[in-house]
Amino acid sequence: MTQATQSTTATFKALKCKECGTEYEPKATHVCEFCFGPLEVTYDYDALRRTVTRESIQKGPNSIWRYRPFLPVVTETPIDVGTGMTPLVKANRLARRLGIKNLYIKNDAVNMPTLSFKDRVVSVALTRAQELGFTTVSCASTGNLANSTAAIAAHAGLDCCVFIPADLEAGKVLGTLIYGPTVMAVQGNYDQVNRLCCEVANTQGWGFVNINLRPYYSEGSKTLGYEVAEQLGWQLPDHIVAPLASGSLFTKIYKGFQEFIKVGLVDEKSVRFSGAQAEGCSPIAQAYRDGRDFVTPVKPNTIAKSIAIGNPADGIYALEIAKKTNGSIESVNDAEIVDGIKLLAETEGIFTETAGGTTVAVLKKLVEAGKIDPSETTVVYITGNGLKTQEAVQGYIGEPLTIEAKLDSFERALERSRTLERLDWQQVLV
Amino acid sequence: MTQATQSTTATFKALKCKECGTEYEPKATHVCEFCFGPLEVTYDYDALRRTVTRESIQKGPNSIWRYRPFLPVVTETPIDVGTGMTPLVKANRLARRLGIKNLYIKNDAVNMPTLSFKDRVVSVALTRAQELGFTTVSCASTGNLANSTAAIAAHAGLDCCVFIPADLEAGKVLGTLIYGPTVMAVQGNYDQVNRLCCEVANTQGWGFVNINLRPYYSEGSKTLGYEVAEQLGWQLPDHIVAPLASGSLFTKIYKGFQEFIKVGLVDEKSVRFSGAQAEGCSPIAQAYRDGRDFVTPVKPNTIAKSIAIGNPADGIYALEIAKKTNGSIESVNDAEIVDGIKLLAETEGIFTETAGGTTVAVLKKLVEAGKIDPSETTVVYITGNGLKTQEAVQGYIGEPLTIEAKLDSFERALERSRTLERLDWQQVLV
Repeated sequence: MTQATQSTTATFKALKCKECGTEYEPKATHVCEFCFGPLEVTYDYDALRRTVTRESIQKGPNSIWRYRPFLPVVTETPIDVGTGMTPLVKANRLARRLGIKNLYIKNDAVNMPTLSFKDRVVSVALTRAQELGFTTVSCASTGNLANSTAAIAAHAGLDCCVFIPADLEAGKVLGTLIYGPTVMAVQGNYDQVNRLCCEVANTQGWGFVNINLRPYYSEGSKTLGYEVAEQLGWQLPDHIVAPLASGSLFTKIYKGFQEFIKVGLVDEKSVRFSGAQAEGCSPIAQAYRDGRDFVTPVKPNTIAKSIAIGNPADGIYALEIAKKTNGSIESVNDAEIVDGIKLLAETEGIFTETAGGTTVAVLKKLVEAGKIDPSETTVVYITGNGLKTQEAVQGYIGEPLTIEAKLDSFERALERSRTLERLDWQQVLV
Repeated sequence: MTQATQSTTATFKALKCKECGTEYEPKATHVCEFCFGPLEVTYDYDALRRTVTRESIQKGPNSIWRYRPFLPVVTETPIDVGTGMTPLVKANRLARRLGIKNLYIKNDAVNMPTLSFKDRVVSVALTRAQELGFTTVSCASTGNLANSTAAIAAHAGLDCCVFIPADLEAGKVLGTLIYGPTVMAVQGNYDQVNRLCCEVANTQGWGFVNINLRPYYSEGSKTLGYEVAEQLGWQLPDHIVAPLASGSLFTKIYKGFQEFIKVGLVDEKSVRFSGAQAEGCSPIAQAYRDGRDFVTPVKPNTIAKSIAIGNPADGIYALEIAKKTNGSIESVNDAEIVDGIKLLAETEGIFTETAGGTTVAVLKKLVEAGKIDPSETTVVYITGNGLKTQEAVQGYIGEPLTIEAKLDSFERALERSRTLERLDWQQVLV
């Protein structure tokens, strides 16, 4: 493994322990040797303030790499497959249905190339992996990360071995195998997969994007903060709602907003951060509800497999942010998750997976509880695509009307469906 | 129904018969009353030359609507859910594998919101449908169009009824139902669905995107030409390869290139147009092979259902373009289609559906036959996402290695997989 040397134009400086502040060289390491705290990348913000402007960003590529100075890579030619710059959709019909006014969907269900926000973190992690000399990359995944790691590794010509729980949704397994990596299906839940991968990372010399490369990897999620700020016309929203799995995404959106304030790209503003969990795996929501400042691990049991992390690495940091920004953390059950998926599809034409259903259902719950002000500019983060978790909605979305290829067969079917619709409405009215 | 009046800033003028040249007002009509030829939208190219520049386009939204002056809508606030501006990926690894040098993938497998190029044509058609006063929209679809029409209608608040063949892939049916439209599953193939819809269009007063709104709808595909020109730095490629279903996409990419030349946005250049069909539904490829200037309808029988149109509406125009640009039209069988899907995924990390597999397999065949020069700048159009046609590759991509959550179980599995790989290579070498 060759150690990439720090170029003079890169603005990231070191890895720093979030707990005790000890600094480390930016190598493939993620835990503090002294206090076992997680390591995070630091930057030269003075240099960023001097050199980065709204215009310099806008002139950049139409991808996360327009924010390259804020990302922990040295190269000027990172792996760019068009990841990021997903639409920020003004969700008027969903807003009306919920009774609020200024709602936006940040739609990473159409992120490139593999239709989840994970493409952001993996693009950064694999670029850094190449700089650090890795030739095999790996991950512990609940599905989306495996898709993304396998796809982007294929594009970059890196060898790839991914680890998933054996009971994943079919679409996520197939959507990984297709790229030709080695796939290890572990008989256990994500937390067990993750523990195994920590051992493997120590023995194989591979770059695990969310273990030994985690400090670089996680920085990719900051782009979800940057893009929303840019797409809102260089200002921050009032309130964001995002799913909580490990808690990393949540903390990095926060870091992204803070960095843009720090270097003067947006005005200072306090943004409320609310988090969404599935009831069947809600350790952070439980801690929030109980007023605890620690997170007790749970055993996951929910259809929202992509966010089913029972022992969330960044749970306490997410908890802290929700509290100090006057946000909330809420959970919803599996039936509410399915309703959330349908609600978003029927009002906005966006088909999300279970994680997105969780987030929309929590949004609804927060509005109903008066925890989101109707006039707040609220951004909901949709992080993955519904085509990957088809099992979750099968059986809840009706069936096509089967007809013959004849006009009268069509007309009879149409009449039947209209009658059924009327009956449905009468039931609603009764 | 109210007829939208032509604004003074809109640059489209009329509908004109492609055969006899008769002009019509831009209403919901698609066939010439005199000769039954198809109608096409005409523009004021002098006005376009005067008012549109590379800079004015670049300042526009990050979607197909940056080309609004070239699209047949009056409004300045079209339905914009981020459709278009998909990545043009430099495909170095696929190029090397095939033995060519300058290959690009135009990746509409990640188009927004429903992951196929159909989002382009539907965004235009539904915007025009609203201008023409329709409140219910419809389509005859092989799947992708149904996904797109249902999703964008949901976002726009239009009622929606779609028609599909009853034997479609599960992902395409579910990916339509989720948005809550009425879905008619017709017992018959696409051509029978289409004939039924022509009758329904005459009786229900609905806006059928690919029937009475077809002249507007089909113009949306021109953006696949514009974007490639812009993304190549305002120049045209040497050769394009695209799938042929009705033939419309192919002819509209051609029209897009010609228009950009006409108004001075790119230099004049002759681009070779090659088309891809599945052997089980290849009426245009057969006509090309036989040297005919007419297309004989066939009965489709292929896994590439999204392009299985046996009686292609624009077949003869596609044929004409391939011939006059010195391109080719080629077909591949179902096994080659699956190999094409895998080849693209393993080399570039792009997971496409059967139509894309067809196109990649035809690309390979054309290179091997010397019909694509290794140094030509070649653009391959990938039009849809593999998550929608999972059935096609299931059984051809291997299985995960199931292991216990223990280091020694992993190590044994890794050793086994490496041994198998070595045996594979030995077989290749023998």
